[in-house]
Order: sequence, then C-alpha cells, then structure tokens
Amino acid sequence: MSDEYEIDKRNKVRQLCDKAKYDRETVHRILDACMIAHVAFVQDDQPIVVPMICVRDGESVYLHGARKARVIKLLEKNDQVCLNATLVDGLVLARSAFNSSMQYRSVTLFGTPTLLESEKDKLHAMRCISEHLMPGRWNELRAPLEKEIKMTGVIEVPIARASAKVSAGPPKDEPEDYDIPIWAGVLPLTQTLGTIVSDDQLLPGVQPSPIVLAMQNRKL
Amino acid sequence: MSDEYEIDKRNKVRQLCDKAKYDRETVHRILDACMIAHVAFVQDDQPIVVPMICVRDGESVYLHGARKARVIKLLEKNDQVCLNATLVDGLVLARSAFNSSMQYRSVTLFGTPTLLESEKDKLHAMRCISEHLMPGRWNELRAPLEKEIKMTGVIEVPIARASAKVSAGPPKDEPEDYDIPIWAGVLPLTQTLGTIVSDDQLLPGVQPSPIVLAMQNRKL
Repeated sequence: MSDEYEIDKRNKVRQLCDKAKYDRETVHRILDACMIAHVAFVQDDQPIVVPMICVRDGESVYLHGARKARVIKLLEKNDQVCLNATLVDGLVLARSAFNSSMQYRSVTLFGTPTLLESEKDKLHAMRCISEHLMPGRWNELRAPLEKEIKMTGVIEVPIARASAKVSAGPPKDEPEDYDIPIWAGVLPLTQTLGTIVSDDQLLPGVQPSPIVLAMQNRKL
Repeated sequence: MSDEYEIDKRNKVRQLCDKAKYDRETVHRILDACMIAHVAFVQDDQPIVVPMICVRDGESVYLHGARKARVIKLLEKNDQVCLNATLVDGLVLARSAFNSSMQYRSVTLFGTPTLLESEKDKLHAMRCISEHLMPGRWNELRAPLEKEIKMTGVIEVPIARASAKVSAGPPKDEPEDYDIPIWAGVLPLTQTLGTIVSDDQLLPGVQPSPIVLAMQNRKL
C-alpha cells in the first residue's frame, strides 16, 4: 500500500496548496485527534451536512446513529459521502485583515458508505467509537444488549480518497507591512477536558475509576 | 418577524426531537459562539463539505475565501447551501455505551448563497468576519487594499430555514442501569484561548495592544 492517498479531482487541494498533505500518516493523525466529523450527502439533489462522531479503524472510518435515523438511511443509500474533520489551533493575527488567518488541521475524505450488518462487525465498530472518545471505558460499562445493537446503525466508510490541510506558524504579511508598528503573532486555541461532574443518581460510595480519572488529563 | 424559523422538510429535526429548537435567539447564540461552520454543496451530483469561517449578521451569515477558490465559485452557482456549526461541550459518561453521548450545541441552516458584488457590501462583511474572530482588531490593522477586496470572494447566505439541537445535562440511563455500581457523569470539554505568541519579526518596542491582550481572556 502506498504511503500516500491517490490524488484525483475530488481530493486535490486547489487553494493554499503548500498546506496540502496526502500522506496516510498525517490524515490518520488528524482523524484520530478529532471527536466529530461533518458528513455531507445529497438528498433530493440538495446538500445536507450533519455532525457525527467519527472514528478511524485502519483505512476506514465508522459513523453511527439510530438505525432508523434519516442520516443512516441516507448514508446506506448514497454511493458517495464526503466528510471533513477540522481542529482549529489558533488565530493568526497578521498586520492586515487580508493576511490574518487561522492555524488548523483539517482532513477531507471521500468514500462509499456501507451499512454494517453482522452483529460482530457492529460490536467491533461500536467498541472503536466508545474507546475513541472514552479510552478504557468499554470494559467497565454494562455490556451492550442485543436490542441496542439492533437499534444502532453503523456505517463504514473505507477511505477511498483523502487530503489534509495543515496551517501552522506565524503570520505571513506583505513585505512592506513588516514596517508597520503593530503587534502581530498567534493566539493559540485549545480544546481542554475539564473536571468530571458526578451524576447525582450514583449509588452510595461509587467513585470514578482510574480510567475515568485519567480521561480528565487526556491531551487532545 | 416571527421569533421562530419556519419548519419544513429541510430543517425539521427527526431524531432526539426533545433537543430541537427553532427560535431565532438560540440559533443566533450558537452561531455567534462558533468560529467555523461546515458548508455543504453539490458538485457534479456529489456532496462536498468544506470548513469555513462563518459569522452571523442579522438574519444572514457571511462566508469568504479567495475570489477564485472553487468553494466560492460553486457557492455562487449553487442555489442551495446547507451549513452546520457545532460546539462539543462535554462527554456524557453513562452506565452503558448505548446511553453514553455528548453535550453539544449545534445549528443547521439552509439558504440561497449570493456573491457580494459591491465594495461597500464586501467591506462590511469582511469587517464583520474580522470582528467576530478578533474583536476590536479591525481598526488597528492596516486598512484593506482595493486589490485585496477584489481578490476576496464573500458569500452571503440569508437564513431561510434553521434548526438548533442542544444537548446538556447528565446521562439518561435505562431505569434498571441505575442499580449498577459504576460511576457516571459528565466530562466537560471547553475551547480555551491561550497566551499570545509574538511574531519574531515585530518592529523593536512594539507591544500587544489592550485589544490583543483582551482577546486572550475571551470566554468562548
């Protein structure tokens, strides 16, 4: 398997091409850092975009929802889906509005969605989704019931084409603008996990497990 | 003008309907808290989704890009666009994977995009975009050049239909699961602005303005 995704009309980055990357490692790393992706599909010739939890497993991503949800039924029928996962890492404060921008990491991918049918495949994907958001939690939880697995629709999207766009570093101003006596630089933006808030219906004496406590310190 | 957006096939929330809101105030508040939106459109019958900076101005949102960018040319031609802006506020750690979920605020809106033509309208929109991300910064910056305004494509999307979905609060477990001696609760997730990093090409003695310093403490 090539280290890079093939480039065609769909995934070729046209703007700010110097920020484009097509290697699997970069694409995977960004996907793995994102909790949600925005999934676009066509319904009655109209575009629709829906935010969904997204997890990568090898060269596929999994999406899920209620089995009866419109998004699952449409993804099942659509032969093509496009999804984007983006993290904003900072505001780039240049000396002009024109050159002000953002630091970000972004992946766009294309593939043909398929609905997972077997209980084994669905359980595997559901576990991947759970572990992506709540590492280690799956084994502490009450096991999924058969009816819950049935009620869940899981879509696999094998990554057919993908591109990443990564913007980092300081402002890039016009040469003449560096003589303007104005501050310029970067204002970082981070996602931070906070301190857990206990459900007020916990059984007496129940404490958060080491797995839950560790989630608070997870670096996103 | 009604306090609520009209509901039709496009914006009607079908899943978790108890979380749906159609009032302008909620939709506006969520849009105003988001820096980017994910914009979906159709190209050659295929769905595409692109992350874009998004700012609300009354009952419209503005999107922008290079005038020659594919996304601007397509938005100009598409008679319908769908965009979603979502903030994830926390992980809801239930007693089962099935009931584990997220706290979030999300807006989906639909409208017909138009390309702004007049310099006056473009400048107004560009100022709104700048002030949304960098409040107060516009007046400190080197003024936009005519060629910069020409090179920028600004799309206005009047909000024709919109819906919000807000998920907050503790886990909702199955009645029988409350007897399981496992911790449950919420792990908050926040976006935080960090400490500014100065460009290493600042003129000697240039300090960040009070406006830039205030940006660091902005609550998102």
